[in-house]
Amino acid sequence: MTARTASTEALFEDACAGDRAALARLLSIIEGGGDEARNVGRMAYPLTGKGYVVGITGASGAGKSTLTSSLISHLRGKTQEVSVLAIDPSSPFTGGAILGDRVRMQSHATDPGVFIRSMATRGHLGGLSLATSEAVRLLDAVGSPWILVETVGVGQVEVEIARNADTVAVVVNPGWGDSVQANKAGLLEIADVLVINKSDRPGADQTQRDLEQMLELSEFAPNAWRPMIVRTVGTTGQGADELWSAITAHRTQTTADGSLANRRDQRLRNELRAIIERRLEHRAREICTGDRWDAIQNEMLSKTRDPWGAADEMLAGVL
Amino acid sequence: MTARTASTEALFEDACAGDRAALARLLSIIEGGGDEARNVGRMAYPLTGKGYVVGITGASGAGKSTLTSSLISHLRGKTQEVSVLAIDPSSPFTGGAILGDRVRMQSHATDPGVFIRSMATRGHLGGLSLATSEAVRLLDAVGSPWILVETVGVGQVEVEIARNADTVAVVVNPGWGDSVQANKAGLLEIADVLVINKSDRPGADQTQRDLEQMLELSEFAPNAWRPMIVRTVGTTGQGADELWSAITAHRTQTTADGSLANRRDQRLRNELRAIIERRLEHRAREICTGDRWDAIQNEMLSKTRDPWGAADEMLAGVL
Repeated sequence: MTARTASTEALFEDACAGDRAALARLLSIIEGGGDEARNVGRMAYPLTGKGYVVGITGASGAGKSTLTSSLISHLRGKTQEVSVLAIDPSSPFTGGAILGDRVRMQSHATDPGVFIRSMATRGHLGGLSLATSEAVRLLDAVGSPWILVETVGVGQVEVEIARNADTVAVVVNPGWGDSVQANKAGLLEIADVLVINKSDRPGADQTQRDLEQMLELSEFAPNAWRPMIVRTVGTTGQGADELWSAITAHRTQTTADGSLANRRDQRLRNELRAIIERRLEHRAREICTGDRWDAIQNEMLSKTRDPWGAADEMLAGVL
Repeated sequence: MTARTASTEALFEDACAGDRAALARLLSIIEGGGDEARNVGRMAYPLTGKGYVVGITGASGAGKSTLTSSLISHLRGKTQEVSVLAIDPSSPFTGGAILGDRVRMQSHATDPGVFIRSMATRGHLGGLSLATSEAVRLLDAVGSPWILVETVGVGQVEVEIARNADTVAVVVNPGWGDSVQANKAGLLEIADVLVINKSDRPGADQTQRDLEQMLELSEFAPNAWRPMIVRTVGTTGQGADELWSAITAHRTQTTADGSLANRRDQRLRNELRAIIERRLEHRAREICTGDRWDAIQNEMLSKTRDPWGAADEMLAGVL
């Protein structure tokens, strides 16, 4: 056993005992990737399954952070502990998290029953998705009963991360239906709870009717969960209790009918597939170096080989 | 030679002779992927290099389609032929293109000197990026002198597709600087021309000063191209000539200093790497089937193996 491994194990033990600094360091290790991250994942994995994961997603500006903050307040009012992962894959170049109005959430930062962590992409987006899963598992393993995963934006990766939750809340605003550009179908498809936030603004009734209509047009299996619609005002906390009731109703039903267990199994299967893809990508990077790589690229650039033929040549003997 | 191959070859010959229906069918083949798509790519590749590719990107609502439409009018006024690829990766679930205000562009649809095509993601986003490159090459090969590639949205994939152009125009609006959420740094990083569209609205001067300041803070190699700032009003066509002048100025300089050739080489190298990654992903999908796959997944679900250990086991003997 190396000193490094011992240190990660000590951190893990401390994090399980409630040491937040140790937990934060382990999350940094997960973000960093590599063998040490894997070591954290290996320790966490057998201890997982007790925490409940709520995904919160929606277009930017919908008030997700404020809403998350009001959910935290609601949970703290019931003396529940809660962890929040705020995921921001929107910054492909700078690699830095754009905090924006997330600052508001920091009002909970000094509360020992609340743990908040931002994660931003470092290069590969698939990597962020995997790192988020690992981070969720770590929070679960160290005993967090509620893990809120908030994603910024509604691109494919954001939606994929959000849907990797036990309950997915999709946040919209009054007037949402007017926007041609919103990825409505995709968002509705993953929603277990539909939240009309900023519902004190004009148009909330119309938005509710629109959403109800869309749900009526959707097909659900008999006895399957039908998405609930909840109205909130994140800035005042109004509706946070109804939202939480909807989330726990979803949990109760899906626990009872077995669909939660199925969803969790499916999530792990997808993750395994993603890990395998990442390993192969890593192999691809190893292949694409050296003299042979240079030579084949030059043949392609001089148009004696097309890109697909060049790929065949590089992969010969590997696949 | 199979009948199928002969048919694709006949289509290619027809497309090279100016048959737009044949061109449209070849683009559908490229979108569909597989061996037939590759066959199209192989025929097109040696004929490429004469067309010039202009990428147009920016936040949704910035007026890219209207601006593209005014560029088309400008080029048609100079009797130049032009092709447009409108790329929409924003719809991960439905797989359908969200046309939105792109309808406006259709005023050019009956003009035989204009070829417009929408492409949306079908599943894998990386696949859309590769299909876009193939589509651009096909348009180049059949003799299109100008290929405009317009992307919707500013996520990583959209930005990657847009930057795969010879000249990249980034479209912003007055007041753009107020938005915390915009991926400014990333957009500026790829811009060869910065377009302030809707510049008849208040705040255009301030936005211009902001952009100039950002450019002043950026570092450029001596004699390297410095992004030009152009003001336009897409709805009236105002500024389309200045925008086109900026694009051609960029072309002239980068052709002279060799950076265009470098950029094109780098683009092909990146594409080759992407093709290799896709092949490996395909291999991963092949691996992840069958009894052994089921058994290892079950070990993972029962927590006797963690996901990383399960991946090791599946990849043993492959990598």
